[in-house]
Amino acid sequence: MRRRHWMLGSLALPLGGCALNSQLSPQPSPAPSAAAADDAATGLRGSGDLGVVIERASGSLGIVDTSARAVIGRVTGLGDLSHASVVFSRDQRFAYVFGRDGGLTRVDLLTRRITGRIMQAGNSIGGAISADGTLVAAQNYTPGGVKVFDADTLALRCDLPAEFAPGRRSRVVGLVDLPGRRFAYSLFDADAIWLADCSDPANPRVTKHAGIGRQPYDALVTPDGRHYIAGLFGEDGLAMLDLWAPQPQVRRILAGYGRGEQPLPVFKMPHLRGWAVAGRHAYLPAIGRHEVLVVDTTTWQEVARIPVAGQPVFVMARPDGRQVWVNFAVPDYHRVQVIDTLERRVVRSLEPGRAVLHMEFTPRGEAVWISCRDDHRVAVYDTQRLEPVAQLALQAPSGIFFTARAARVGF
Amino acid sequence: MRRRHWMLGSLALPLGGCALNSQLSPQPSPAPSAAAADDAATGLRGSGDLGVVIERASGSLGIVDTSARAVIGRVTGLGDLSHASVVFSRDQRFAYVFGRDGGLTRVDLLTRRITGRIMQAGNSIGGAISADGTLVAAQNYTPGGVKVFDADTLALRCDLPAEFAPGRRSRVVGLVDLPGRRFAYSLFDADAIWLADCSDPANPRVTKHAGIGRQPYDALVTPDGRHYIAGLFGEDGLAMLDLWAPQPQVRRILAGYGRGEQPLPVFKMPHLRGWAVAGRHAYLPAIGRHEVLVVDTTTWQEVARIPVAGQPVFVMARPDGRQVWVNFAVPDYHRVQVIDTLERRVVRSLEPGRAVLHMEFTPRGEAVWISCRDDHRVAVYDTQRLEPVAQLALQAPSGIFFTARAARVGF
Repeated sequence: MRRRHWMLGSLALPLGGCALNSQLSPQPSPAPSAAAADDAATGLRGSGDLGVVIERASGSLGIVDTSARAVIGRVTGLGDLSHASVVFSRDQRFAYVFGRDGGLTRVDLLTRRITGRIMQAGNSIGGAISADGTLVAAQNYTPGGVKVFDADTLALRCDLPAEFAPGRRSRVVGLVDLPGRRFAYSLFDADAIWLADCSDPANPRVTKHAGIGRQPYDALVTPDGRHYIAGLFGEDGLAMLDLWAPQPQVRRILAGYGRGEQPLPVFKMPHLRGWAVAGRHAYLPAIGRHEVLVVDTTTWQEVARIPVAGQPVFVMARPDGRQVWVNFAVPDYHRVQVIDTLERRVVRSLEPGRAVLHMEFTPRGEAVWISCRDDHRVAVYDTQRLEPVAQLALQAPSGIFFTARAARVGF
Repeated sequence: MRRRHWMLGSLALPLGGCALNSQLSPQPSPAPSAAAADDAATGLRGSGDLGVVIERASGSLGIVDTSARAVIGRVTGLGDLSHASVVFSRDQRFAYVFGRDGGLTRVDLLTRRITGRIMQAGNSIGGAISADGTLVAAQNYTPGGVKVFDADTLALRCDLPAEFAPGRRSRVVGLVDLPGRRFAYSLFDADAIWLADCSDPANPRVTKHAGIGRQPYDALVTPDGRHYIAGLFGEDGLAMLDLWAPQPQVRRILAGYGRGEQPLPVFKMPHLRGWAVAGRHAYLPAIGRHEVLVVDTTTWQEVARIPVAGQPVFVMARPDGRQVWVNFAVPDYHRVQVIDTLERRVVRSLEPGRAVLHMEFTPRGEAVWISCRDDHRVAVYDTQRLEPVAQLALQAPSGIFFTARAARVGF
């Protein structure tokens, strides 16, 4: 069994000599009105077009407005935001920020203040929120396990150590929400997938699937909440659970992928949450290879490979599924390519800026926001014309998260 | 060619002797806090969990909070709300309410005030909002056509009369938004589907498809924005446009449906926007028959029929597609049935109340809200346990609309 070479090239890069730019991008002023003046005084506004951008180097968040295409505020003091991820409250007012250092911070997007912060672990790798919005869950490396918190108070509601053998705890990855206060996650060190039902947080029920394949390193749930799929670092292929089956069983898919081929150095592991499901096909980043795989979600067989400009990291479908956008690991991380899903080929190659780390579509997909870390800006592209329509100044931006995620499964 | 019998039985029913109940349902008080007191003073809150319920008889809207499961306000003075429909602004703060009398009203859900109202036609049948949130479009019977308004000011941006022959204008139905400031709609009196591109509202471009089938009476766009499908009142079958084709052409689907069968009286026309697409299958209300049709969206062939308790009106998929909920025309409109899409059969029959007119799922589908007009309440059901979890007092409620629609195509 081959092991992959895991070289997190982009993480090792210095931030360079650029001075951090804290200036907000200029925006056209709306016509003044009494109502607008009232709103400015009270902070009253809708929260459906808000979002946050992680500023990793400075441990801060930029709060953005996707209608005005503007940075409208900044919140500091969030600790180590390497590999940070964000989920949103059901009302789309609060962002829950999971830091690498185990910090879990609740940020009020309307008042732009921190309204809760705990250190819940020593080394954490992201989180999820229950479908009903009442429970926030964090997945931890140290101590290995999942902790579940009250979304309002951040009080611990249940502790789920990933103890797979007496005294041995696994690092946890691939945590996602499922319908009904349930979560699914993978145990990197235990070759396992566990399902936790926290309907009664005082008495969580955990269902364990062992022997699912070597070293699951990340996972996703399909947009319908039906299929949980974990990527395997220690071998070729992926592990899949059909959660709608009366007795879900792990099945191996794409096990032949890469077999017999020379392993390539991997400069950055692709993010599985970036996997795109468009219509009946899933678009997956090949690991190490300059390809995007197309998989039929009915048969879970590979049906095509699309050559791309580098090692794909995020492979993301526009919400309507007509386009898939791809960014890349070093040395190709100044590029973004656009795949037409009908033609199954790259129809445009773009160079939005230096060190493209993440992309986020607006809820209906008319625009995509692209973080260009080393240019200290986010580029906004019109997805029809495939042209930039705005640039926003941010401090070494990485992840971009919009509040519409609150209404979706698996984000 | 057969004509269907169109008997809008439910519209003719008197409202009964019940006194309209304006009392709000009691809710548990949250623990008081300084932040909560501040919020109460400023009205500050997220808008992702808000919604409105049409109170047709009184020309008012109930504003609801789907987290608290409470009515939090009421707005009156909205005119004739028969067949009213609602779309939401991109920031999920404002509801645009289309009244039957041609009134178009913008309601601020945070201040609970009307912030704009125009009489834009003599007889109107609903509307849509562009994907970028800048344009609100109304579809009108009198004068027949579509009018497009600035979402901020309600100023007329373009007038698209449905003049299909000199001096002859058609009633317009089935208006939906498409990506890129485009709209699709059907001309009932002209057997036509028109597509309007309002990228430059001063110079709209209209593409016309004639001879698409007799009397299109309503339409939908699939969740991916790809297929526009109009139901035909004047003949069997439906007309479909593949909008992703380089040169979209109308194709007839399900043309054999009902052929050779005895036409039945139709007590209420099903709403096509209620059609459910779950996975690769669409669930359609049969017209007049006690059946739900299952159609493969790859081939657009009928693959199954599911017997149900009456003439279906709304056939709606839970957001994850695992369940489809169905309500019915008179005399069966006290019933709701739940179909399991894996088993393709009814798994539960419910009786939520009298005169069930509409249903709306919460964004992630953990609950469904059901309007029981003649009981003057909305029943909230947990979709896992299939049990009622709350009842809200409202005045003869009909349509229910939640702000998460702002993030979706075709709502």
